[in-house]
Amino acid sequence: PALGEDSSFLQALRNIANRLRINSIKATTAAGSGYPTSCCSVAEIMSVLFFHTMKYRPEDPRSFNNDRFILSKGHAAPALYSMWVETGFLKESDLLSLCQVDSSLEGHPTPKQQFVDVTTGSLGQGLGVACGMAYTGKYFDKSSYRVYCLLGDGEMSEGSVWEAMSFASYYQLDNLVAIMDINRLGQSDPAPLQHHVEKEYIHKYLNCSCALNQPRHQPTAIIAKTIKGKGIPAAEDKLGWHAKALPKDMAEMVMKDLQSRITSSSKHLYPPSPIEDSPPVSLRNIRMPSAPSYKPGEKIATRKAYGMALAKLGRYNERVVVLDGDTNNLTCSEIFKNEHPNRFVECYIAQQNMVTVAMGCAARERNLVFASTLASFFTRAYDQIRMAAISESNINLCGSHCGLSTGEEGPSLMGLEDMAMFRALPRATIFYPSDGVSTEKAVELAATTKGVCYIRTSRQDNSIIYNSNEDFHVGQAKVVFQSKDDQVTVVAAGVIVHEALAAAEHLKKERISVRVIDPFTIKPLDIKTIIDHARVTRGRVLTVEDHYYEGGLGEAVSSAVVNESGFNLHRLAVSHIPRSGKPHELMKIYGIDRDAIAQAVRKMLSSSANAK
Amino acid sequence: PALGEDSSFLQALRNIANRLRINSIKATTAAGSGYPTSCCSVAEIMSVLFFHTMKYRPEDPRSFNNDRFILSKGHAAPALYSMWVETGFLKESDLLSLCQVDSSLEGHPTPKQQFVDVTTGSLGQGLGVACGMAYTGKYFDKSSYRVYCLLGDGEMSEGSVWEAMSFASYYQLDNLVAIMDINRLGQSDPAPLQHHVEKEYIHKYLNCSCALNQPRHQPTAIIAKTIKGKGIPAAEDKLGWHAKALPKDMAEMVMKDLQSRITSSSKHLYPPSPIEDSPPVSLRNIRMPSAPSYKPGEKIATRKAYGMALAKLGRYNERVVVLDGDTNNLTCSEIFKNEHPNRFVECYIAQQNMVTVAMGCAARERNLVFASTLASFFTRAYDQIRMAAISESNINLCGSHCGLSTGEEGPSLMGLEDMAMFRALPRATIFYPSDGVSTEKAVELAATTKGVCYIRTSRQDNSIIYNSNEDFHVGQAKVVFQSKDDQVTVVAAGVIVHEALAAAEHLKKERISVRVIDPFTIKPLDIKTIIDHARVTRGRVLTVEDHYYEGGLGEAVSSAVVNESGFNLHRLAVSHIPRSGKPHELMKIYGIDRDAIAQAVRKMLSSSANAK
Repeated sequence: PALGEDSSFLQALRNIANRLRINSIKATTAAGSGYPTSCCSVAEIMSVLFFHTMKYRPEDPRSFNNDRFILSKGHAAPALYSMWVETGFLKESDLLSLCQVDSSLEGHPTPKQQFVDVTTGSLGQGLGVACGMAYTGKYFDKSSYRVYCLLGDGEMSEGSVWEAMSFASYYQLDNLVAIMDINRLGQSDPAPLQHHVEKEYIHKYLNCSCALNQPRHQPTAIIAKTIKGKGIPAAEDKLGWHAKALPKDMAEMVMKDLQSRITSSSKHLYPPSPIEDSPPVSLRNIRMPSAPSYKPGEKIATRKAYGMALAKLGRYNERVVVLDGDTNNLTCSEIFKNEHPNRFVECYIAQQNMVTVAMGCAARERNLVFASTLASFFTRAYDQIRMAAISESNINLCGSHCGLSTGEEGPSLMGLEDMAMFRALPRATIFYPSDGVSTEKAVELAATTKGVCYIRTSRQDNSIIYNSNEDFHVGQAKVVFQSKDDQVTVVAAGVIVHEALAAAEHLKKERISVRVIDPFTIKPLDIKTIIDHARVTRGRVLTVEDHYYEGGLGEAVSSAVVNESGFNLHRLAVSHIPRSGKPHELMKIYGIDRDAIAQAVRKMLSSSANAK
Repeated sequence: PALGEDSSFLQALRNIANRLRINSIKATTAAGSGYPTSCCSVAEIMSVLFFHTMKYRPEDPRSFNNDRFILSKGHAAPALYSMWVETGFLKESDLLSLCQVDSSLEGHPTPKQQFVDVTTGSLGQGLGVACGMAYTGKYFDKSSYRVYCLLGDGEMSEGSVWEAMSFASYYQLDNLVAIMDINRLGQSDPAPLQHHVEKEYIHKYLNCSCALNQPRHQPTAIIAKTIKGKGIPAAEDKLGWHAKALPKDMAEMVMKDLQSRITSSSKHLYPPSPIEDSPPVSLRNIRMPSAPSYKPGEKIATRKAYGMALAKLGRYNERVVVLDGDTNNLTCSEIFKNEHPNRFVECYIAQQNMVTVAMGCAARERNLVFASTLASFFTRAYDQIRMAAISESNINLCGSHCGLSTGEEGPSLMGLEDMAMFRALPRATIFYPSDGVSTEKAVELAATTKGVCYIRTSRQDNSIIYNSNEDFHVGQAKVVFQSKDDQVTVVAAGVIVHEALAAAEHLKKERISVRVIDPFTIKPLDIKTIIDHARVTRGRVLTVEDHYYEGGLGEAVSSAVVNESGFNLHRLAVSHIPRSGKPHELMKIYGIDRDAIAQAVRKMLSSSANAK
């Protein structure tokens, strides 16, 4: 109904808004924590969205036919929880457990709740996720569900919001509605524009619902002028009340007043049902239809093998979707793009948004998503990747040009901290393949591995070293070079495996035998294989990596073997910020090439000989 | 002069532009690497800037009176180098060493060159740095120098650019000029808006110079419609030429053609001299005027001690500048703000921009800069921090609410990967103070420590444990609890020191003695002290940290002791993504509190007893 026409409907919405206020105050006061004033400013917006505008099944919040809702201003979580109390999905008494250590109602929304698709709380990320969902709805699902995102004005300062707006506009996401809660006040200070946003709309039910129902070819943005703390007289439009639960007595007075505004006669509202026009999707048991077709000795860069693997996977799975940030001819995702242009999403040079769009595309298991850019540029999206890990998002990221391999470009384009970054995320998986075969296997495994997967690829061509029928598993290392008399175990991944193999061949001539282990995944790391083989080589282990010393392969191995007695671990990695130069020159200068490996092995052997 | 009035001046600028093209082509072809077409689109812009508009001393590029220039589209580095050949600062023959491993002319600008204030190359960061310089010029130096920033259109997709624009507009940086090189083409694809930017200006000398000279109360933005590859007929406005050096024969043909357009009769141009109205600044030997005034047993959170130390340092040093991102009442930088409001810069919720503004404020040693937000939110700016490290910027960052201490807010606001993030940056220093005294010392030391410094502070109050005359040094650990019969060395920092002390007191009652070491700085780590004391406790070391297992204190210690024989290292850290709850409950659940420490010590002792 048009809202203005039905006064009892309008009153029912008002009642819901005021109950939201009461419940948000009740919950936060019980918790002694939270943001009641941030909940109060969105009460009317939420009641209109949840009981007038959005079409969804309240008993099945994750139904893929539902309209989606993202609370980008995640600190208003109690407002969201209150709405799901109104729908009957949560019990009102649940709210009293807010923030408690055994409650599934956390301070910010987390996927412990079925009605939360992604964790919010680090600001400015919700709209990008909403973009991914809306893109999926419009272009992949081709369905009528819409996506609503509620943002705060404080977070509008985050550039990621503008990245998402550009994306929404460029791809004409007319199924996306962004509602901006312009309540003027931030955490410590007023928001920079306060209430003077360029095109101001007075938030009223009528205006709001009109705009919400208007179909357009462009995304809709509603700029709602609201009052922070609305309904709490002492806190309305006042600084100093952000992130403060009301004291008990004050809360009770306010709740009593709010309760008095709720009419008992108004009718009970139900959300409109969704249109069931989304296709079923299964992302289970996704497999490559055939083994890799590389021949031993053939040369290919792992980044190229990544692109080819994606294209192959996409050939047999309609829901494989690939994103890139204006680097598809570098990451080689262009191979997928050329073969499956409709499932390739160009995100331009906006890595933060690319990651959140990936999260949105992957939500509710609608798509199997891979997103790529240079390894160094994922530092730009570390917060988003961190939030993806907290959200339990199934996204696969590929960073190409890792390490010194960008050579001439210099340090700004070298990914030398990416392993540290991903290792420090619980549940993340890091694939670091060393040839075409293992790259294809990494892509295949990433497709079915839960959580954030990261694939680290390199620029240079390298020989195929694995047979195409070689079996790969997450957390299973490969011994790629060995003999009976090995004296040192070299652990190396990616391009460095090839340096290690060259060193091993060279050392053979000096009658020094080394064993080479390719861990394949850096996280989880196959500690057992490394330790077992290192024991055979009398505890001598050498790690080599195209990465800084901290947080990468070497520290992972250090941590794993630190309590092994009689071990001697030597490490090679990049110790300084590098410079421009040819990749092979840089690998020599920074001491991670074949010569450096051979030299380190000799040194380990001579020092252990001296020790005897 | 108004450019249109003097045709020989105009021709001289044209000559410079074409020589820039020739030199950029020559350098990139010699290097076999680089972006000649990206240089060609900015040739006229650069010649007007460097020989008409900007006022500077070509023989002293870092003079603090000079106008500043930031090449945000760093991949056009050869265009920048060519300008400094024109000024006489570089020799033309230097250009032929571009990207070579022994050259100071890298693929992207780096501070190896005096005319480069910050490294660019990761896109979208230059304008934020320019904002910091312009803010300094207008509000701190109160001088007439202006700041020019040249951006590419590809990088306009980065949200960080919009953050910088908001900042520039909000603070009315009318000494800032942003020039956007709208050349339509990106790396793999055309830029999203191609040439259809909203308000298009045809780039002409006349228009350009008019706009550049117009004083306003707002920053100036010039949208220059340019042709990528201009002057290279085969590449003009064509995709597929990005990041490609021209083949030798093609280069020679093009250079010959460009040379023919250069008239020999035109006059030699000199840049206008700067106005010498910037105050001299010395940031050397900055010291606290007195020792900390905390009393043993007094309770204070390290975040509060941080704010108080800043205010104190600012009292005696006019050039101490503090930035925050709408969290000054959380990080406690509000203490500084209240005392020195004119030297506090509110950056709102835009952490990326905050870090680049900090870099800009710190450039040319104009200010001693501290910037703070929650530890978790620095993940948002990891790319900027990485670039600050490459830039050798002297910036001090403080992350508050580290670890589980945000408690009820839940995982999105917990900084649990910050040590991994900063450890993986060469030259970075990580302070992790455990009480008010050590926090004040950390602030004082950070003030004079070069490079990126990170101070990790906590939310909760803790007792003062150091005497105010205690001497602190970077890389020097403190033994905070010991006796003759210690059996285990516990290494812990920040709030965990207090847990370790409580555990030590408790274990005493069980006649178990432990030694507690507070490393003070996590990077560099005082390996020697840890190992020396651990030897005394028979190699038994327990590390405990409010951080994920990877990349933090525990891995740093692992790496340090891995080759010590007879050592037994046990580690406690956060192994899963946490949840909402009270901080002390969470510390118990995730096993890093006093009970967990005591239990781990008992276990280590019983297992080593069994081993005997």
